[in-house]
Amino acid sequence: MTTVDLNSDLGEGFGHWTLGDDDALLGIVTSANVACGFHAGDPLTMSRVCEQAVREDVAIGAQVGYRDLPGFGRRFIDIEPEALRADVLFQLGALDGFARVAGSRVRYVKPHGALYNTIVHHEEQAAAVVRAVADYDATLPVLGLPGSAWLRLAAEAGLTVVHEAFADRAYTPEGTLVSRRLPGSVLHDRDEIAERCVAMATGGAIKDVEGGDLVLEPGSICVHGDTPGAVEIARAVRERLTAAGVELAPFAP
Amino acid sequence: MTTVDLNSDLGEGFGHWTLGDDDALLGIVTSANVACGFHAGDPLTMSRVCEQAVREDVAIGAQVGYRDLPGFGRRFIDIEPEALRADVLFQLGALDGFARVAGSRVRYVKPHGALYNTIVHHEEQAAAVVRAVADYDATLPVLGLPGSAWLRLAAEAGLTVVHEAFADRAYTPEGTLVSRRLPGSVLHDRDEIAERCVAMATGGAIKDVEGGDLVLEPGSICVHGDTPGAVEIARAVRERLTAAGVELAPFAP
Amino acid sequence: MTTVDLNSDLGEGFGHWTLGDDDALLGIVTSANVACGFHAGDPLTMSRVCEQAVREDVAIGAQVGYRDLPGFGRRFIDIEPEALRADVLFQLGALDGFARVAGSRVRYVKPHGALYNTIVHHEEQAAAVVRAVADYDATLPVLGLPGSAWLRLAAEAGLTVVHEAFADRAYTPEGTLVSRRLPGSVLHDRDEIAERCVAMATGGAIKDVEGGDLVLEPGSICVHGDTPGAVEIARAVRERLTAAGVELAPFAP
Amino acid sequence: MTTVDLNSDLGEGFGHWTLGDDDALLGIVTSANVACGFHAGDPLTMSRVCEQAVREDVAIGAQVGYRDLPGFGRRFIDIEPEALRADVLFQLGALDGFARVAGSRVRYVKPHGALYNTIVHHEEQAAAVVRAVADYDATLPVLGLPGSAWLRLAAEAGLTVVHEAFADRAYTPEGTLVSRRLPGSVLHDRDEIAERCVAMATGGAIKDVEGGDLVLEPGSICVHGDTPGAVEIARAVRERLTAAGVELAPFAP
Repeated sequence: MTTVDLNSDLGEGFGHWTLGDDDALLGIVTSANVACGFHAGDPLTMSRVCEQAVREDVAIGAQVGYRDLPGFGRRFIDIEPEALRADVLFQLGALDGFARVAGSRVRYVKPHGALYNTIVHHEEQAAAVVRAVADYDATLPVLGLPGSAWLRLAAEAGLTVVHEAFADRAYTPEGTLVSRRLPGSVLHDRDEIAERCVAMATGGAIKDVEGGDLVLEPGSICVHGDTPGAVEIARAVRERLTAAGVELAPFAP
Repeated sequence: MTTVDLNSDLGEGFGHWTLGDDDALLGIVTSANVACGFHAGDPLTMSRVCEQAVREDVAIGAQVGYRDLPGFGRRFIDIEPEALRADVLFQLGALDGFARVAGSRVRYVKPHGALYNTIVHHEEQAAAVVRAVADYDATLPVLGLPGSAWLRLAAEAGLTVVHEAFADRAYTPEGTLVSRRLPGSVLHDRDEIAERCVAMATGGAIKDVEGGDLVLEPGSICVHGDTPGAVEIARAVRERLTAAGVELAPFAP
Repeated sequence: MTTVDLNSDLGEGFGHWTLGDDDALLGIVTSANVACGFHAGDPLTMSRVCEQAVREDVAIGAQVGYRDLPGFGRRFIDIEPEALRADVLFQLGALDGFARVAGSRVRYVKPHGALYNTIVHHEEQAAAVVRAVADYDATLPVLGLPGSAWLRLAAEAGLTVVHEAFADRAYTPEGTLVSRRLPGSVLHDRDEIAERCVAMATGGAIKDVEGGDLVLEPGSICVHGDTPGAVEIARAVRERLTAAGVELAPFAP
Repeated sequence: MTTVDLNSDLGEGFGHWTLGDDDALLGIVTSANVACGFHAGDPLTMSRVCEQAVREDVAIGAQVGYRDLPGFGRRFIDIEPEALRADVLFQLGALDGFARVAGSRVRYVKPHGALYNTIVHHEEQAAAVVRAVADYDATLPVLGLPGSAWLRLAAEAGLTVVHEAFADRAYTPEGTLVSRRLPGSVLHDRDEIAERCVAMATGGAIKDVEGGDLVLEPGSICVHGDTPGAVEIARAVRERLTAAGVELAPFAP
């Protein structure tokens, strides 16, 4: 039977401020990228999201980011690799504590925001994040973009790498993301998004931005949690996948 | 053979700012209360202190505190117990990650500053910290003041409690600390401090503030790391204990 | 002609996180209590709220709070008075900069959350906040609860004190607020709230929690900005006041 | 009579952590670059440094930086220009409040650390900082490196620009700083440093790194406050300048 994983960013509120609908998404996705307090996420939120994820059989992943609450981790920071490694370890350990108390553990790592984008190409920072994961637990899979320095270095370090695709993003014929600055880079039609996810999950082709056929074979599909209509889109994706006979299950062991 | 543990607060710098001489103290004490990032301590410092502690065979303890970098954790904060439990778990998990990567683990818990003082009597906050430790790992011993709500509730929760005494503080005849606001509350004479430690470690009596005999039987003696002459005092304490035939060893398994 | 001021807490988002509908409320109220970055509010938000307030002829007030983003300033912090004075001055100066750049200036001070509640009775902290305001600009009026240490000490220091009433809170026969922990402490009916505001503004009586008549003569009425239906309630209050012939205008010169 | 200004970074502690000897340096320099809380500096420190600066007749300058306490403002942050402008305005206003309460005002602006280095060449960030200063008070002089985008754009915006030279740094024949990564980039000999300052202040030549003559005519000379021997070097500079008949006075009106 064909299976696929749906991942989403969760636990991204901070104290009195909320973001997205964690509870609804935990009923839909199979992997939760839980913010670890550096770009978003406070301890009480981390605790609650982990508990609810365990109740819903959702895999807990560490969504590690730059230490940047004011910028929500969306600003590149030119941090020294040794300090970045330590920042990632700090976040990993903190989230793992909550995951273990909730009866599970951190089962994968997915960087957030500017860190995610930076380590596509920034070798030193990519290596620092890889080092943190390998030092913490070399059996943890890492999630990222095919072709990134991050996944290449992770593979070289012996980590399991998992490719992800984005449910609502347009792709170039080469299989890279169309820049958010270009029109049409983000899809908004629920049905179209759900259809693309079925194609991705079953080995079929999606249309690239120029109309050609593109086959992606992601180990996980990312659905957004904090855009307008996010929950409805995620639910439609899940329903369409299920209707197509695709089983939803975490990629992480 | 008589053994005693010496503990000290370590890793209390933050980024560019340093405090105390961590490396020197790690060559003297047997237990390191390592700051976990909420009142002091940044990830890189936590990483380095854990590595050095392992090299020196020093037990790593979690020095958990209020989330208060501007106040160094010395201001009481009226935080809700559920949030405090989560804050403590966050710190515990983060430090444990570094300790494990360094080849050890967090081996005990000692609250810091205003949190330490508050949970002597504040039942709700004391219970919240106990809950965090018990939920994280019920085999972790906790360090504190005899007679405190903290140790009473920890014992009721099945945790191992360890009494600590302070090398350089004056005691009342009842065995409680003389308030820092009173003259003579803090001792400064190296020889006197070292002698008191030998007495404490060997079951002998020290003089209380009124001149009477007081027998304390601490499971650990706290030496300060950031006061003037701290390293010299700590070294004198260690030398005098060794000369008196007292073995220095961590209390934590 | 009878005039009254409506004040509301604004600018309480932080970075990526939003709270309430600042733009809508700036079209309704006459005084904006703008968060100054310590419990909420980031520089870009402060800048934008000040600019919009000036466009809407709304008076800018400094909503100073404890330095506590994780707790949204709702946790009492036992901070030393000298440090609290400096924290308040810091916030005052920062907001005043934005207000001046926008073409106005800070025109009054209203503490936030736990600081607001604490200085009702905590003499040292109340005196510290008074000192900050008096040192910064002794012509700035301060807003608060009748009977509070805050207003008493402010008056003694020569500051102009302004009493505020809450549009949606129940009052005891003595004119103090019914504790939020008690049922009925917060009113939710838009019409009832609006009627009470007309009564308060025109010297009439409202019903206290026991059904008796209570005359409050507030210099300003606080409407909430972040509760469900907040904007609709605030708009109803404004419309009813206007219909009753009450002019809305800032209390601050 | 020849006059020159000596500037130094001050107020760079944070809470319990200290850095450098503010009091000693305030007795030596004529301009204090006071940290404004974003890379270093807490409100109480800002308050005290401003008061002491006024007592010592030292000009108060705003040492604005990235919002980065963990990195001491030494990491480039790719912040959006509008947010950077607001961050600078926030810091300017906050410090100006303390300066005014102390009886003076902010009299110039000098960016710190990574921001200082970035706006040598980063046009958008340089323009954002210029905009903040011009919006706040277009009569404020700005301090920086000759040839930087920062000073060029500031001049174009009508601000007064002031060139600074570094007492203890080696220069290339072109008058730019020798990179800190190269040997010999930082001078340590007190006498040599003092002699160079006399040359700079009196229109004479210093030796560049290749041994040639280089004439710098700085409006201000920067002496460091937090390096080993900083106070002694600064004092030697002051004494030698005075002995050479150079008057020390703030450049800022």
